Amino acid sequence: MSVLVASMYDPDGWTRHVRAALPEHRVMATNRFGEFEGAAEDLAAVEHVLAWKPRQELLDRLPALKAIFSLGAGVDHLMDLPRLPNVPVVRIVDPDLTARMTEYVVWQVLHHHRMGAAYQRQQATRQWRDLRQPAARHVTVGLMGLGVLGTSAAEALLKIGFRVAGWSRTPKELPGVRTFSGESERDAFLAETDILVALLPLTPETTHILNRSLFAKLRRPGPLGGPVVINAGRGGSQNESDILAALRDGTLRGASLDVFEREPLPSESPLWNAPNLVVTPHVAAVSDPAALAPAIAGQIRAFERGEPLQNVVDIRRGY
Amino acid sequence: MSVLVASMYDPDGWTRHVRAALPEHRVMATNRFGEFEGAAEDLAAVEHVLAWKPRQELLDRLPALKAIFSLGAGVDHLMDLPRLPNVPVVRIVDPDLTARMTEYVVWQVLHHHRMGAAYQRQQATRQWRDLRQPAARHVTVGLMGLGVLGTSAAEALLKIGFRVAGWSRTPKELPGVRTFSGESERDAFLAETDILVALLPLTPETTHILNRSLFAKLRRPGPLGGPVVINAGRGGSQNESDILAALRDGTLRGASLDVFEREPLPSESPLWNAPNLVVTPHVAAVSDPAALAPAIAGQIRAFERGEPLQNVVDIRRGY
Ligand SMILES: NC(=O)c1ccc[n+]([C@@H]2O[C@H](COP(=O)([O-])OP(=O)(O)OC[C@H]3O[C@@H](n4cnc5c(N)ncnc54)[C@H](OP(=O)(O)O)[C@@H]3O)[C@@H](O)[C@H]2O)c1
Ligand SMILES: NC(=O)c1ccc[n+]([C@@H]2O[C@H](COP(=O)([O-])OP(=O)(O)OC[C@H]3O[C@@H](n4cnc5c(N)ncnc54)[C@H](OP(=O)(O)O)[C@@H]3O)[C@@H](O)[C@H]2O)c1
Repeated sequence: MSVLVASMYDPDGWTRHVRAALPEHRVMATNRFGEFEGAAEDLAAVEHVLAWKPRQELLDRLPALKAIFSLGAGVDHLMDLPRLPNVPVVRIVDPDLTARMTEYVVWQVLHHHRMGAAYQRQQATRQWRDLRQPAARHVTVGLMGLGVLGTSAAEALLKIGFRVAGWSRTPKELPGVRTFSGESERDAFLAETDILVALLPLTPETTHILNRSLFAKLRRPGPLGGPVVINAGRGGSQNESDILAALRDGTLRGASLDVFEREPLPSESPLWNAPNLVVTPHVAAVSDPAALAPAIAGQIRAFERGEPLQNVVDIRRGY
Repeated sequence: MSVLVASMYDPDGWTRHVRAALPEHRVMATNRFGEFEGAAEDLAAVEHVLAWKPRQELLDRLPALKAIFSLGAGVDHLMDLPRLPNVPVVRIVDPDLTARMTEYVVWQVLHHHRMGAAYQRQQATRQWRDLRQPAARHVTVGLMGLGVLGTSAAEALLKIGFRVAGWSRTPKELPGVRTFSGESERDAFLAETDILVALLPLTPETTHILNRSLFAKLRRPGPLGGPVVINAGRGGSQNESDILAALRDGTLRGASLDVFEREPLPSESPLWNAPNLVVTPHVAAVSDPAALAPAIAGQIRAFERGEPLQNVVDIRRGY
């Protein structure tokens, strides 16, 4: 039983950890360009592929393929392929990754709520001045996406005292969270949101959803003097020139972006020094091969025993 | 029944809110230098004083005094007086203030844990680079002080996934927190602490407790590559030249100070631009007169009906 690791991102780390976790399997790997350098008959025996941005040509050569395991929590890198093999696609759901995302969200929400950038400017100019700041219970954090990550972030934000609202595709109930769903309830959700946190998968529906017309619907001026947007889902969900313009003209008071339309963010991008924008290099919740390889190995073994796969993606809805 | 507001900090705000909350009382106030400009017989009738850094001469002239209400959570400004009137001293315990302190602690812990300063330098130089960062469950936040504020911070930090340890004068039990108490257990507490958060009252025992010899006992290098110290209690608890030296020679990897030996922090202080130090101007948890005046008014009325006062300070232990 053969397994192929097809990742351009850290292929050696993944391969090593997958080999350690699946000693009874033959584990092959692509090179760091995502190309397979071995024989065609080796590929013909591959039943499971662990993939991050795999090449279409490679997937085309796997006749025995039974399942694809995404090496990241998002599967847009697979959904975009012209010919996705007709096998189950499994995504990562992992407590370590979820916890890291919750840290990131709480950190950036508090940075904006507690006026981190303004206090830092004061420190740089040796100014001692108390800035008015609303209590968390007067600020609403609106989560776009109430999946695994959004739900965990909501719980931590509630614990700190924020009001929390959430928006998803289908109706959801979450203790303490005012929930909204679908297109029809989106504007009502935005109208009560002071700090918008996007934790959405990238699909045709969510592409460029973070744009000027959406920003204009957020609560304003609100308790922070203007709304804030945080995106840690996928860069494709944001219109970056709209974000830049909104930060410059005050439609947004601040923003934090961990993901970008092009990654790495090109060094000439004006986002690097946009006003009150925090840029992080797609590190909100890094997939850790040491933590994740054993979980994927466990799924492969269970699947081979005939048990059902967990966290299978719904290909039609795209996430 | 007369009440005197004796505060050099925002006396007008306090007086206005106390008047609104105690319409049936006569509410007098000092000027913004803490001096009383009215008649001596008015002072002679004062039964309750609401004080922030009151002048000794003023307190000496209050023969009918029944209780002192501190306008801040700390009472060191009263304990330091040469002749503290022998009446109950009440301190502020308020959910709004507690929640704000919890926000500050979580914010600063995450700033250091998520390497905020390093990512910011990368942003300023347009560098896209993933920095290794431990999961919160591998990092221990050690709280010095497990009172009202320490307990609330502990709960929020646990929810985000940190390991939490705590140290207090007398033994405490808190779910999920490894607790230590007294001098005898202090070194053991420090030895497992990666991020030290001081939420201590200022007393003779806690004066300059945050010094070089204490920093040397923190876990090192630890998961963050060195320990971090956060002080939001009182500036008198820290030796500032030790903090500066420890940041410069790497004994500390970072620090956040909201309180200082002298406030406002003098503009010539080298702390303003010490390496990886976050300076905020005593704003971790600002007392909000609008929220607090009604609570104090409620206590005064209950006391006048003969009911016991809440949150009375133990003068001998000093907090
Ligand atoms: N920056 C990083 O380091 C990082 C790390 C990990 C993941 N991510 C990104 O985070 C995304 C979310 O992860 P997750 O595990 O929370 O996913 P998930 O459990 O699948 O949740 C996705 C949420 O988005 C909602 N949603 C999807 N399409 C929508 C639409 N058109 N309108 C409204 N709501 C919609 C879903 O609604 P329903 O509940 O109705 O289905 C669900 O609540 C991933 O897809 C990945 O791209 C980023
Ligand atoms: N920066 C700001 O904006 C701000 C705002 C509010 C308050 N503060 C400061 O925060 C301080 C703490 O507030 P709080 O409401 O949490 O006070 P608290 O409820 O009285 O708790 C004080 C804690 O410190 C411990 N402690 C005192 N002396 C000690 C010693 N010598 N050794 C070990 N532990 C000792 C106490 O131990 P036991 O439990 O054994 O008594 C208790 O756990 C206040 O005094 C104030 O100075 C700062």
